[in-house]
Amino acid sequence: MGISGLSLCASPATRHISSSKSPGSGFSGPEGHNVRTEQAVGDGGIRGGLESDQSKSAPALPVSRAASLLRNVVARVKAGTLSREQALLDIPPSMLDELLHPTIDPNFQRCVISRGLPASPGAAWGEITFSPYEAERLAGEGRRVILVRVETSPEDIHGMNAAAGIVTARGGRTSHAAVVARGMGKPCVTGAGDIRVDEKKGEMTAGGFTLKPGDIITIDGTAGQVIEGAAPMTEPDLPPDFATVLEWADSLRKLRVRANADTPGDAATARRFGADGVGLCRTEHMFFDAKRIRAMREMILAETEDKRRASLASLLSVQRQDFAEIFHIMRGLPVTVRLLDPPLHEFLPKDEGDRAEIARSLGMSVEKMRRRADELDEFNPMLGFRGCRLAIAYPEIVEMQARAIFEAQVAVERDTGHPVKLEIMVPLAATRAELDLVKARIDATAGAVRREMKAELSYQIGTMIELPRACLLAGDIARSAEFFSFGTNDLTQTTFGMSRDDAGIFLGSYILKGILPLDPFTSIDVEGVGELIRIAIERGRKTRPDLKLGICGEHGGDPASIAFCHDVGLTYVSCSPYRVPIARLAAAQAALRLTSAQP
Amino acid sequence: MGISGLSLCASPATRHISSSKSPGSGFSGPEGHNVRTEQAVGDGGIRGGLESDQSKSAPALPVSRAASLLRNVVARVKAGTLSREQALLDIPPSMLDELLHPTIDPNFQRCVISRGLPASPGAAWGEITFSPYEAERLAGEGRRVILVRVETSPEDIHGMNAAAGIVTARGGRTSHAAVVARGMGKPCVTGAGDIRVDEKKGEMTAGGFTLKPGDIITIDGTAGQVIEGAAPMTEPDLPPDFATVLEWADSLRKLRVRANADTPGDAATARRFGADGVGLCRTEHMFFDAKRIRAMREMILAETEDKRRASLASLLSVQRQDFAEIFHIMRGLPVTVRLLDPPLHEFLPKDEGDRAEIARSLGMSVEKMRRRADELDEFNPMLGFRGCRLAIAYPEIVEMQARAIFEAQVAVERDTGHPVKLEIMVPLAATRAELDLVKARIDATAGAVRREMKAELSYQIGTMIELPRACLLAGDIARSAEFFSFGTNDLTQTTFGMSRDDAGIFLGSYILKGILPLDPFTSIDVEGVGELIRIAIERGRKTRPDLKLGICGEHGGDPASIAFCHDVGLTYVSCSPYRVPIARLAAAQAALRLTSAQP
Repeated sequence: MGISGLSLCASPATRHISSSKSPGSGFSGPEGHNVRTEQAVGDGGIRGGLESDQSKSAPALPVSRAASLLRNVVARVKAGTLSREQALLDIPPSMLDELLHPTIDPNFQRCVISRGLPASPGAAWGEITFSPYEAERLAGEGRRVILVRVETSPEDIHGMNAAAGIVTARGGRTSHAAVVARGMGKPCVTGAGDIRVDEKKGEMTAGGFTLKPGDIITIDGTAGQVIEGAAPMTEPDLPPDFATVLEWADSLRKLRVRANADTPGDAATARRFGADGVGLCRTEHMFFDAKRIRAMREMILAETEDKRRASLASLLSVQRQDFAEIFHIMRGLPVTVRLLDPPLHEFLPKDEGDRAEIARSLGMSVEKMRRRADELDEFNPMLGFRGCRLAIAYPEIVEMQARAIFEAQVAVERDTGHPVKLEIMVPLAATRAELDLVKARIDATAGAVRREMKAELSYQIGTMIELPRACLLAGDIARSAEFFSFGTNDLTQTTFGMSRDDAGIFLGSYILKGILPLDPFTSIDVEGVGELIRIAIERGRKTRPDLKLGICGEHGGDPASIAFCHDVGLTYVSCSPYRVPIARLAAAQAALRLTSAQP
Repeated sequence: MGISGLSLCASPATRHISSSKSPGSGFSGPEGHNVRTEQAVGDGGIRGGLESDQSKSAPALPVSRAASLLRNVVARVKAGTLSREQALLDIPPSMLDELLHPTIDPNFQRCVISRGLPASPGAAWGEITFSPYEAERLAGEGRRVILVRVETSPEDIHGMNAAAGIVTARGGRTSHAAVVARGMGKPCVTGAGDIRVDEKKGEMTAGGFTLKPGDIITIDGTAGQVIEGAAPMTEPDLPPDFATVLEWADSLRKLRVRANADTPGDAATARRFGADGVGLCRTEHMFFDAKRIRAMREMILAETEDKRRASLASLLSVQRQDFAEIFHIMRGLPVTVRLLDPPLHEFLPKDEGDRAEIARSLGMSVEKMRRRADELDEFNPMLGFRGCRLAIAYPEIVEMQARAIFEAQVAVERDTGHPVKLEIMVPLAATRAELDLVKARIDATAGAVRREMKAELSYQIGTMIELPRACLLAGDIARSAEFFSFGTNDLTQTTFGMSRDDAGIFLGSYILKGILPLDPFTSIDVEGVGELIRIAIERGRKTRPDLKLGICGEHGGDPASIAFCHDVGLTYVSCSPYRVPIARLAAAQAALRLTSAQP
């Protein structure tokens, strides 16, 4: 049945796992507050990291490797037998991950029912559900759920947000589920290929087990395992040494470390973990909320600009509120807001039944709905009608977003007395002309807001550099862009001609066969993608010597990639909030090392 | 009803167009031999082009602009008032297109029922059919059909081959239908957006007309029009001046001009139009024949290497025969054979019903069939499991193809006494390691065939350069590649992050707004894609000074792109057989011009 290793499973015949089954002995759920998480944010935020409260930690559990290493190096530095620099170099940055997420009690005997990819670290248990809507409903009742899907799509965000963890049968480490889960700091296992979800029957099978909604599983996103029942958890144990080491790192690193944060919750986590700002605030996730998606769909399905503007007007106030909260949390620090990026069909349901229902609720014919969905459907969405291509076709979307951003900026600056260091980012430009067209709309909107609100507005406009052409034309693009943010996920996809969602089927064997040394979606491909980045930096800075340069792909949280970013002279890296401490340490190591990742 | 301009339509109420309706007066069908097409091929092929037989041309029709221009310049050169060089520069290469395809009698009053994109030049009339199978059946009965589809896919090739012309409701000028039709020299209109095909009802609507299979339409692939009824045709009128001018061009050009030819028919056309070889022989089209696709599907659905090898064995002999015919036709000239490139799911039917039928015919469960199809399904097929990625996962496919190629080579060389100048091309390499792995299999197969057939084998192995990474790493890749062929279709897609099948929705407005000067899929983007090509050439030649360099994307037939290819020092361009004369003239012009397309 494909179960081996750590498994200690009941016979599949005895498979039914009651949803009332209580967790094993020694259990400590994520609610157990054996760590006092400091939620305060603001100018006085604790940049040293979380404080731990040892007195409340479970006495039976072993101290993690990371905690004992930190204790050891800090003690030696204090004793004068180790330099701070050497201490920082002695800590593998990825080891800090252990301290940031709950883990399964090492003494627990796991019954592994499926193995997949370790897509987002940490562990969680909960009732199975196959529906994002159901996940949201159950979480609203205070229940813990694990969302199990064949794959996730942006319309599942609300359910992923509500779930304690996510499992997908398909997809790689950079699939939608994986990327979103890492951003949320939630454990996730993707590509659990032997899981079969039968939504009609309302059951899933894996490893000889048949499980139904309500049955309890545990997922270990660090090991890529799906486990029967509720495993006892060890909560992250943040020792005071953690804060000490990161303070040392901050004093030595040259790279700024920002976080990718789409929600006020992300922004609070980012600030709490010591981020120097937000390097990527994706605005599309804001539209997937149940109340908002209706207006978004109305906008997409509108047949005239007037109707589109009417739907956009109803999105303006909610979007302004989102930005205001994020700006408030991040006040005094830079925030890069990216304009709408994904193809519009991502906002429309894929299922025929759902489409019919939405058509009815919007008072349009099913046929018209289907026609518009067909029009927007794409062979290669990654290479399709998205990014600034949308902004150019529908400038009214840019105007709404720019207005929401500027109005929020004015409100927060008036409210707090602190500046909102605003950077507006145009995605997917391949030419300077695209950026200029979008910039003109943003500037015009800024002018209008200035007059209406009698306010000063200070902002920068820049672009994602995520296409090979943009790297080559960087000298020209920098005439209009005040900053570049390298979108290394998409740049890797286009440079290699390799979709991160489809590469799973061959990428593993490429690494085993030595064709590639590492997964280029995890650690930057220095020879190919890296050369394009070098070209872009050289050409961009030649045009504009003070060009601000950052990276906001998944690579921003990978220590080897951070070393590369340091070497090529980037201003900052931006990563998932939960990887900010790792990036802070890795940036210090890069500054300390004489050798570099350069060929 | 969207009908304007040239339309002269009967009222939609009188729409039924009998399939027995006879063509208008002055009609001359493509069967009308008002031109004697020289079919002889071989060493003595008429490199000067087709000979015309003026005595048989329809006297009422005006001489085309192209024919009168050719007559004029040739007369002036003969009179000594114009140099050959200036004569060549005075002829717009694209004007030759008029001479190569049938056109609609200019006096005919057209009733245009739909407008789309001019995807492949020339005109044709025939009975409507929505099914590629039906197209093949009707053509077998000697009837003329126009295949109307929402879009085409590789499994439609047999029907496209049988049809006189092709119309699709979706897709751009570089969609599957457009590219294949141009290669076949068949007229094609794509993106005829107001055509609605209702396959269930068995009818289509367009411009207020409702048409059923059997109703007759004409398509004008040069103008992008779908026209009611059968329009009278003017056959291509190849004056002797055509041959004269192309002989002058050949004596001056530096670039070789090859053709993209996948079938013996293509190869014959290529040779007839004076091609210097085949620059791209795509092997996948060979698998779509009704008899072969079964073995191909068995191979894809096989669960073990042994079963896969058994299915491949049955493809070996047919593939060997295809190669033998092409090598025979092209003997003495180089032929570049590309190994299997498209993702495997392209060979499986998309429709659930078809899948069930095929599962039954292969004796496998529908569930298993669906699972394999799901496994192979991709979010972004363009960036997926294709090219050498397939060759690395299934080396037995490479071995079968290499064996078919080498056995055909030996047979043809023995038969004709002429060498087969063989070049084997590995698609989609991003690294040298990929090329090396595939090369090792090809070399091993060559060794086996040498021993078994006691033959000398001479061949070169090279790679498509179609990914930005391959351009950057060209210095390393050239250590293993004896030639590069720039696949500029895919290189444009990846450099711009723009799918040619999806760009239709925004690309038109990009050109109107001046964001791009030209469609980069038609005329090479010199600043972006062009720079990558320059980088690859420089680095490749540094490693291997005698590296052979060609281009086999659609751009190989575009005069402006040909000028670029001349400027950067390519060895050859390869284009659709029907564009070979245009490319020969454009190559001469590029050699004559002092100014170049370089920035």
